[in-house]
Amino acid sequence: MIEPYQLSHHNAQHEAAHQRKFTFLAEELGSETAERILARLIDFQIAIPSWALGTGGTRFGRFAGGGEPRSLEEKIADVGLLHALNKSSGAISLHIPWDIPSDGEAIKQLAASHGLVFDAMNSNTFQDQAGQAHSYKFGSLQHTDARVRKQAVEHNIDVIRHGEALGSKSLTVWLSDGSSFPGQLSFRKAFERTLDGLREIYAALPADWKIFVEYKAFEPNFYSTTVGDWGQSYLYASKLGPKAYTLVDLGHHLPNANIEQIVSLLLMEGKLGGFHFNDSKYGDDDLTAGSIKPYQLFLIFNELADGMDARGLDHATGLGWMIDASHNVKDPLEDLLQSVEAIKLAYAQALLVDRTALENARENNDVAAAQEILQAAFRTDLRPLLAEARLRAGAAISPLGLFREQQIRRKLIETRGLKAVATGL
Amino acid sequence: MIEPYQLSHHNAQHEAAHQRKFTFLAEELGSETAERILARLIDFQIAIPSWALGTGGTRFGRFAGGGEPRSLEEKIADVGLLHALNKSSGAISLHIPWDIPSDGEAIKQLAASHGLVFDAMNSNTFQDQAGQAHSYKFGSLQHTDARVRKQAVEHNIDVIRHGEALGSKSLTVWLSDGSSFPGQLSFRKAFERTLDGLREIYAALPADWKIFVEYKAFEPNFYSTTVGDWGQSYLYASKLGPKAYTLVDLGHHLPNANIEQIVSLLLMEGKLGGFHFNDSKYGDDDLTAGSIKPYQLFLIFNELADGMDARGLDHATGLGWMIDASHNVKDPLEDLLQSVEAIKLAYAQALLVDRTALENARENNDVAAAQEILQAAFRTDLRPLLAEARLRAGAAISPLGLFREQQIRRKLIETRGLKAVATGL
Amino acid sequence: MIEPYQLSHHNAQHEAAHQRKFTFLAEELGSETAERILARLIDFQIAIPSWALGTGGTRFGRFAGGGEPRSLEEKIADVGLLHALNKSSGAISLHIPWDIPSDGEAIKQLAASHGLVFDAMNSNTFQDQAGQAHSYKFGSLQHTDARVRKQAVEHNIDVIRHGEALGSKSLTVWLSDGSSFPGQLSFRKAFERTLDGLREIYAALPADWKIFVEYKAFEPNFYSTTVGDWGQSYLYASKLGPKAYTLVDLGHHLPNANIEQIVSLLLMEGKLGGFHFNDSKYGDDDLTAGSIKPYQLFLIFNELADGMDARGLDHATGLGWMIDASHNVKDPLEDLLQSVEAIKLAYAQALLVDRTALENARENNDVAAAQEILQAAFRTDLRPLLAEARLRAGAAISPLGLFREQQIRRKLIETRGLKAVATGL
Amino acid sequence: MIEPYQLSHHNAQHEAAHQRKFTFLAEELGSETAERILARLIDFQIAIPSWALGTGGTRFGRFAGGGEPRSLEEKIADVGLLHALNKSSGAISLHIPWDIPSDGEAIKQLAASHGLVFDAMNSNTFQDQAGQAHSYKFGSLQHTDARVRKQAVEHNIDVIRHGEALGSKSLTVWLSDGSSFPGQLSFRKAFERTLDGLREIYAALPADWKIFVEYKAFEPNFYSTTVGDWGQSYLYASKLGPKAYTLVDLGHHLPNANIEQIVSLLLMEGKLGGFHFNDSKYGDDDLTAGSIKPYQLFLIFNELADGMDARGLDHATGLGWMIDASHNVKDPLEDLLQSVEAIKLAYAQALLVDRTALENARENNDVAAAQEILQAAFRTDLRPLLAEARLRAGAAISPLGLFREQQIRRKLIETRGLKAVATGL
Repeated sequence: MIEPYQLSHHNAQHEAAHQRKFTFLAEELGSETAERILARLIDFQIAIPSWALGTGGTRFGRFAGGGEPRSLEEKIADVGLLHALNKSSGAISLHIPWDIPSDGEAIKQLAASHGLVFDAMNSNTFQDQAGQAHSYKFGSLQHTDARVRKQAVEHNIDVIRHGEALGSKSLTVWLSDGSSFPGQLSFRKAFERTLDGLREIYAALPADWKIFVEYKAFEPNFYSTTVGDWGQSYLYASKLGPKAYTLVDLGHHLPNANIEQIVSLLLMEGKLGGFHFNDSKYGDDDLTAGSIKPYQLFLIFNELADGMDARGLDHATGLGWMIDASHNVKDPLEDLLQSVEAIKLAYAQALLVDRTALENARENNDVAAAQEILQAAFRTDLRPLLAEARLRAGAAISPLGLFREQQIRRKLIETRGLKAVATGL
Repeated sequence: MIEPYQLSHHNAQHEAAHQRKFTFLAEELGSETAERILARLIDFQIAIPSWALGTGGTRFGRFAGGGEPRSLEEKIADVGLLHALNKSSGAISLHIPWDIPSDGEAIKQLAASHGLVFDAMNSNTFQDQAGQAHSYKFGSLQHTDARVRKQAVEHNIDVIRHGEALGSKSLTVWLSDGSSFPGQLSFRKAFERTLDGLREIYAALPADWKIFVEYKAFEPNFYSTTVGDWGQSYLYASKLGPKAYTLVDLGHHLPNANIEQIVSLLLMEGKLGGFHFNDSKYGDDDLTAGSIKPYQLFLIFNELADGMDARGLDHATGLGWMIDASHNVKDPLEDLLQSVEAIKLAYAQALLVDRTALENARENNDVAAAQEILQAAFRTDLRPLLAEARLRAGAAISPLGLFREQQIRRKLIETRGLKAVATGL
Repeated sequence: MIEPYQLSHHNAQHEAAHQRKFTFLAEELGSETAERILARLIDFQIAIPSWALGTGGTRFGRFAGGGEPRSLEEKIADVGLLHALNKSSGAISLHIPWDIPSDGEAIKQLAASHGLVFDAMNSNTFQDQAGQAHSYKFGSLQHTDARVRKQAVEHNIDVIRHGEALGSKSLTVWLSDGSSFPGQLSFRKAFERTLDGLREIYAALPADWKIFVEYKAFEPNFYSTTVGDWGQSYLYASKLGPKAYTLVDLGHHLPNANIEQIVSLLLMEGKLGGFHFNDSKYGDDDLTAGSIKPYQLFLIFNELADGMDARGLDHATGLGWMIDASHNVKDPLEDLLQSVEAIKLAYAQALLVDRTALENARENNDVAAAQEILQAAFRTDLRPLLAEARLRAGAAISPLGLFREQQIRRKLIETRGLKAVATGL
Repeated sequence: MIEPYQLSHHNAQHEAAHQRKFTFLAEELGSETAERILARLIDFQIAIPSWALGTGGTRFGRFAGGGEPRSLEEKIADVGLLHALNKSSGAISLHIPWDIPSDGEAIKQLAASHGLVFDAMNSNTFQDQAGQAHSYKFGSLQHTDARVRKQAVEHNIDVIRHGEALGSKSLTVWLSDGSSFPGQLSFRKAFERTLDGLREIYAALPADWKIFVEYKAFEPNFYSTTVGDWGQSYLYASKLGPKAYTLVDLGHHLPNANIEQIVSLLLMEGKLGGFHFNDSKYGDDDLTAGSIKPYQLFLIFNELADGMDARGLDHATGLGWMIDASHNVKDPLEDLLQSVEAIKLAYAQALLVDRTALENARENNDVAAAQEILQAAFRTDLRPLLAEARLRAGAAISPLGLFREQQIRRKLIETRGLKAVATGL
């Protein structure tokens, strides 16, 4: 999609302005700091979920764009394009059954040709598929009917098998299980059945795999959710064993939750496994990362960076980083480029925090100084660092700019058609 | 669906137990009070929306039940059945384009044969229909493109024309117009364009019609909504003129909103037009009325009863009463029977409130006594009054019981099939 | 305060009406059910916190009533009065340092003379007391300064010693520790320091004591709280050991939290220790129990009753039951009588739930039936059962009525003065 | 407090680093843009409320700092100090009865000597003052007792008279009137009584004065507030007349409210009067402006700047700008310096928004571009512009830095004592 000469041409055009800004910034930060952050930014990769490549929707409808990927191969091509533009999207997260590969090895090679690896696999027991024996209308692992639970367990094991073939190393289990009305559910039995099912899935995990137990406060169930908050996810994960972790999706909380504190405590307990980035104002709005509460995103990364260092976790590989958003009114690829940029900006700001000064302020209860330290990092314009990291990694100075200059959406529509609909939601 | 002999048989079976309870209650309340409430309960009718007769869903999926109505005629039959069971559902609220009648007069007669009239008509500019010239992806009346606005205005006028043919007297306009990202919208221009469009629709209203401007805090837009709260709806309605009113949907508020106060003030200002009943815990969950916060429902009716009396509005006809719910995990007809029961129970409790004593407590700032007065009404078991009202109106003592005894869902599935899908959402 | 003859006179006046209602209800329920619930109601005692006997306030001010208790002795007298009126308030929960007894044995005997025992002791490290060596401005157990932490630990141990002298068997630790600004706190270090402090307190617990770790989402800190949700409280309690439990206060959650599910899971894990009853619409509003969301209160009791049975816990003694409210605009004693009534009503409704039918509906995913079963219990007017339980226990048919008939507040003001201010908040 | 030579010394030390940053930024922005923003920043003044100069507290307690102002004169000195440091705090907002001047003319001259004018006057009917004839326990203007209402009206008129003597031109009326329990209040009567009282106050307004009707969702009343949201405030203001406006306090909303849209609509209707800046995560937390949601603050200023231009309002004088915060854990003066900095930063960012490009993106429904345009302004580090504006206005390059270098709090404690308590809350 993007030819090397196009990239070079683009970068050549923006080079002078970039160098001016980067040089100034690097001098202000000091080159040691600048290089330290640059190195981490170059390493940092955020997985793109296959289902975010098409237009999303709400229960009221969906307004499709055009040129959406019609197959797993086209999804990989789209992520490959993003990665070519920003060199920060070097992984793809698949969803079964939407993305069952007909030939795992061929798919693996196709991905590799784009520089992509396979991140966490995602199972689906929140929808009924055509021809499915038992319905998930009343849940999957929590279900009162043992046959439904068995079907759900087997599906998850099947997803693991697909993932093994592709070189994935983790399974994300998001259960929509819960209830919409008081009385509908025995909370205890639902918990116990779900735990039993997770244990069976856990037993099928390869030795070097992780399982991520995702929680969510509400939706699509509107009274209770069986993995409803971090405390419940933690209970499951700690009962399951050392390969089980909690996955945090930013949109899956009650109003006003302090997500950064949750992240910090889960890291402390060794049970934070991965992250789904997005942003929201009301519920699980699945908006572009950093588009509503960028300071919160920074505060979360502030805890992540600090907490991972405290546990000796590698920033790039210690946790699973993934976007999980729904693109209802924007071009999905543009939206993903914006999300990656916002995530990396928040990460860079977190890396800029003067930790020694911060700890010192904290020890002295100097609240104003602690705030100044965080705000100083957040208010510094680190976009030139992000651009420099891209430049060094062989990506575009302005990924979104190049995407538009090359009219990539127009080309995708020409190739795939205006009515193309991505498989999935 | 329900034969008179089946109804008689059912009532005969429950008559003795009912009489025992009703007699005791009527004595406790005093017959004057009992008869006063009974008379109002018999008059009270709640419109059933055509789109609530099928299984609802979320953006994650939909688990259809069976035997859903496949046509407008079958929707009318379903509402007719509900009305036969409870004699409180004597109106149907249609949605265009889902319910365009091919022969208005025939449909009117069909409805009349079930004792039904046509309540508010609902337009749809939140979805694109096949073959539609312009897309509502970025709004309808707020749209920057005049052609989209014109299309939306004409659609609404078209809905009025359909409504006239059926004898409806009001138009409900729910606009999903808004934005999902900061910056997307000029709030002022969106307001002004929307107002202009509403003025054109208003101008097309027949002399004896009302227009209801519904508001909603969020969803399907996740940053702003152009008719986002009661204050905005009030602004539109007051600028439009005397035929324009605000419509309150219980699920369309921010967390913790005091809806009963909003209702009271809108009534005071003469701008409350109608009501959409449902219940919710998190957002616009569209659950069965009274299933989550029955005391709030009572408090709302407490304001409605008092406020309508203060303005001399007839309880049965002064406002538009309608259910607006989504039936994701229950049989839609059973759910609607439960909603009607909960609404009438709250209404009866409100009618039981000792208003003289309450005003007296208020004047004396006797907060504990005011609470006792409200709670005394709420805690009284008025279900025997509801049953008696049904009995006198020719309905079933236990509508849900009779529905199940007669295995009506099974019969509907036999007639309409397991895969029947209601037109609409 | 209340003479036996006044009580007898009161009951005699209301006896006929009561008997009429009770007889009818007992027949409807069946005498076995009625007697089963009655027995439990008579046993059920709710502790009154000493600080709730005076007028509460907000940061904007406090509007004192009159006749407030000026000493521990007068607080005991007030609770004794409540207990004489309803025979359901047979315990008092003290707060140190507000309620330090000068002579523990004498206080114990005074309480016993009113039929009262001492429920959980409460420590206070959220305020500075006159003459205190170190300030809790920046927390207590989480504090960066070891001297502050030591002071807080010693205070808690001191509270245990006072409690032992009085026959109490538990310590409630509510920490306001947290932060008001991003950056202020190292979440991990705050957690670890707090855990260390709790461990020291735990080590000082007598063998037959429990420690309750209370959580709260926010206030008085407005960014983070170091025991901020049930998950965090559970972490502390499980690390501390078998004498440590979580305490749930209804007002201490984020908006829309499903508290009944939390209760159910904590019971399942054997870590639910006690309960603080109140009600709220916005935050920790500390309103009268059942005054805002009575159905939620019922749903919580539904889980409590079921979960305690599942673990073989005695309803009356298995958990700590306590009111924690603030009486800003009502007479505190009247408010407490209303709270006790609402709590017992919810408990009685929960006892009426047909558990066999409910489990059956759940197993069959009959959501509508499950809702009907819960609502049937909630909608039944069980006030005559409460009155009968009081009558049998030697209390008043209408505690609030008798309180007013005897003009007790007027007498208290005459005795204690209009400007009496309860020690405490 | 701050001598000119200290200021010069401070600025000399930071001059070189500042010039380096400013020069770079001005070149990047273009000098026209830089100068345009600089001019507006120099003009922009934010009033300091007299009650924010001392330590704030919660209902659970208050941890006083030292050196708090003990008199109106010392409060003026404190604001004078802030203004000397940042030249952006050239106004003070008084609160009666806490700040009744014994000699108005002398106070006016004292303020003038610090370069200060008197912003909006604030009345207090949410607390009882010693010796007050009637209590506001159950409200003031809403009260059922005409004598209470009269007292409240007269107090407000008294506040106007004090304000006239000082040269103020506006009255802010914040009413805590409302109710804490369902049933307590007749919403309609409360509204009507309040409107009547406001009309009496309005009638006493001098010709060139404005009255600001502040709204608040909850606290200190926990069920309803009689001026509870912008819609209610708008109703009062529009019924009162052209001198009446709505005042927006950022902390006075339900969770997730879109405040920037409210601001935009009120400006459109000509009814936005003023602003109370602070920040919050949960309720009316009254934290430092910009400390929790700085992007929201920017979005609000984006609407303010645009909306004021659309109505031809002068940015500096068209609306009332005021901080309203509570300083529980920080030095109040430091906190105010941080708030002013954050407010001006958000304002500068809003002035940087490319409005032509933004409107163009909007007209084309280019949502991604609209987001890029806003984020580009927000992500630009404009702190050098703020410093330059201060330098030109004769203030400190780093106000907080100079405050600390000069150890002003230590000096204040030496002068005023450690136990000094500011009059007021």
